[in-house]
Amino acid sequence: MKAEIVAVGSEMLTPFRKDTNSLYLTEKLNGIGVLVAFKTIVGDRQKDLVSAIRTALARVDILLLMGGLGPTEDDLTREAVAEALSLTLRRDAQQVAALHARAASWRIAMPSNNLKQADVLAGAALLPNPNGTAPGQWLDTTFEGYRKLIALLPGPPGECLPLFVAECMTRLRAVVPSRSIATRTLRAAMIPESQADKLLAPVYTTYTDVETTLLAHAGDLQITLLCAKPEAEAARRRVDELAEGIEEILEDWLYSNAGESLEQIVLYYLGLRQATLAVAESCTGGLVAERITAVPGASRSFLGGVVAYSNEMKSAFVGVPPELIAERGAVSAEVAKALAHGIRIHTGATLGLGITGIAGPTGGTETKPVGLVYVAVSDAQGCEAVERIFRGDRQRIREWAAQQALDMVRRRLM
Amino acid sequence: MKAEIVAVGSEMLTPFRKDTNSLYLTEKLNGIGVLVAFKTIVGDRQKDLVSAIRTALARVDILLLMGGLGPTEDDLTREAVAEALSLTLRRDAQQVAALHARAASWRIAMPSNNLKQADVLAGAALLPNPNGTAPGQWLDTTFEGYRKLIALLPGPPGECLPLFVAECMTRLRAVVPSRSIATRTLRAAMIPESQADKLLAPVYTTYTDVETTLLAHAGDLQITLLCAKPEAEAARRRVDELAEGIEEILEDWLYSNAGESLEQIVLYYLGLRQATLAVAESCTGGLVAERITAVPGASRSFLGGVVAYSNEMKSAFVGVPPELIAERGAVSAEVAKALAHGIRIHTGATLGLGITGIAGPTGGTETKPVGLVYVAVSDAQGCEAVERIFRGDRQRIREWAAQQALDMVRRRLM
Repeated sequence: MKAEIVAVGSEMLTPFRKDTNSLYLTEKLNGIGVLVAFKTIVGDRQKDLVSAIRTALARVDILLLMGGLGPTEDDLTREAVAEALSLTLRRDAQQVAALHARAASWRIAMPSNNLKQADVLAGAALLPNPNGTAPGQWLDTTFEGYRKLIALLPGPPGECLPLFVAECMTRLRAVVPSRSIATRTLRAAMIPESQADKLLAPVYTTYTDVETTLLAHAGDLQITLLCAKPEAEAARRRVDELAEGIEEILEDWLYSNAGESLEQIVLYYLGLRQATLAVAESCTGGLVAERITAVPGASRSFLGGVVAYSNEMKSAFVGVPPELIAERGAVSAEVAKALAHGIRIHTGATLGLGITGIAGPTGGTETKPVGLVYVAVSDAQGCEAVERIFRGDRQRIREWAAQQALDMVRRRLM
Repeated sequence: MKAEIVAVGSEMLTPFRKDTNSLYLTEKLNGIGVLVAFKTIVGDRQKDLVSAIRTALARVDILLLMGGLGPTEDDLTREAVAEALSLTLRRDAQQVAALHARAASWRIAMPSNNLKQADVLAGAALLPNPNGTAPGQWLDTTFEGYRKLIALLPGPPGECLPLFVAECMTRLRAVVPSRSIATRTLRAAMIPESQADKLLAPVYTTYTDVETTLLAHAGDLQITLLCAKPEAEAARRRVDELAEGIEEILEDWLYSNAGESLEQIVLYYLGLRQATLAVAESCTGGLVAERITAVPGASRSFLGGVVAYSNEMKSAFVGVPPELIAERGAVSAEVAKALAHGIRIHTGATLGLGITGIAGPTGGTETKPVGLVYVAVSDAQGCEAVERIFRGDRQRIREWAAQQALDMVRRRLM
């Protein structure tokens, strides 16, 4: 069966906004053997929206609409589906009550335009949205004589994705013919993409029945394997075989064979070793701490950190000697080591991490260019530092530096 | 005039790949007054591609096709346009010679399938592609009686974008009626989306010639205005008038009338007041520091921060009395205030920011649920704390808390 994902919103037709929900939905659909044949982005104009809906229904079996379910004037998805399929909208009394109750619990007066979120397409089931006010809708209907499944999903990722998994997947599985898709994601750190492909291509190209995708971003390489077979066991076996071959080639560049993030792996090893970590960041400005603390349960192994942006903070909070900074410069291997050592001693952590560098765009010199980064890891056995020069803009240099830092902690724990 | 951008390639229908070319093309098209009404992504299947081309030609004036011009079996864009418009393809002798010459200069034997890159649509002009082997094509034609402009562009960004600018912009300008587009982005913090729309809709709906888009995420509201007129001055005036009306209504919720981020504004005010900021974060885990330091030049006003994830760090690094934590709990207004005050005193900053809360998914209790966050700002005049309960998952709660914190700093500086 074929699906089309239609993202609704004029903001996604500006030069600034990318649709990211659809990547996740595609993964879920692929997982039950549904091919995404088209993706469309359309603005908040009812005429265009109706055209997009009719076009989709003429060429696919499953239509997922994202966005345009909110309370504002330009939220038109419900109205457009009604027009495209000549369906009526009714205002659902239970939804109206729920909207009133929610407003009351927040102690705010409910604007009357909010009530359009209670409008339901004739024949549609409402899909509860615990993370927002607008419920989704599910329509099992016909268009020009063919059966069509249509889901109206909220646009914000935090609402769309949980709702889709909780409400739509079971409904889809009941209709979609059974074909098993096995997938596996391997991840590696700090290996150049072209080097990885040169090493891996001779192996994965021989697995013509497994779709292999390499995706690299700022020192993180993600390798996704996908195999579809009538039998689950056969698909799984092929994916596992190829994964094993890749693991052998990538050796210790590989940090996960099941898709976990580098920060998850670092926290896993910290737990395993009953070790704790503290970080002293300069150029990454909190990015390493932010990545680690984004993982639920991080507090068990992560004590915290210092964003030592000023030289005074490097000395006052982490004990970096001011004369060392004066002598070697804030961006130096010695200061990175002093940061790693100092934060470890001051916090009592098993491992200390220190990062200093020049993220740019200004601040570079001939001997210390933009992109120069020093990362150091300290533990009871000693302290090691590395020097790297990363390319790209400020954001990219910070991302590379954070990845390098987390990878050094991983390697120290292995 | 309206345009549609169609990206061709099955890899863009996988869960991993985003189309980025289209953002750049959208910017260029907007700049000459062309609205991008639809974006479509379609795989390398000729039938689907023909359907996408016919759909686009039925609803827009300008069709940009990206990708599918290479030498492989699944490069089908030329063939699909020929089928959709019933045009013939001819093999261009000059192109064939150029392909042979290029292969010879690389000292490689040319695979015969390479020659399909020399196939030209009847009536099309070839667009030189100095960065690749496949030239683009430009077709000024009719479809169902209407004039249509069609560009076939190579997929790789390094080929597509330079070729579009060099070859297509002049051709488009010659056809597109001269029209100027004025845009403006206003941003507001911590106002609920539905409340904002209720306040603003009565105003912006009277500006029928200005397209207004509201977009909300985790306490950040972005309002984009777009107006197209034959005269630049008239378009600019309408956008400015509406922006003024919105500014009056949103009052101090509004933090930018030119699209800057909240952290940029905070840094701007810090500079203006010759003030400095330091932060002590618990539940946000470095997110506030990371947002601030992502702005180039942040080091002029931002001293740094402490990610005081453990209670020990709250006391050792920021001077929060352990008995206060024992008595009130780590998540309390008192501890938020002690974090804000302590980080200010310890760093010598003008302003101190303290954040503590429960990001979840675990750690909540009946009296202190997941989502409960305290934020405090301290300066020489005193210290104020607010209590908020945010909804959503761990990431969302952290984003809301960081936004609340930055907004409090902004308000204190205003």
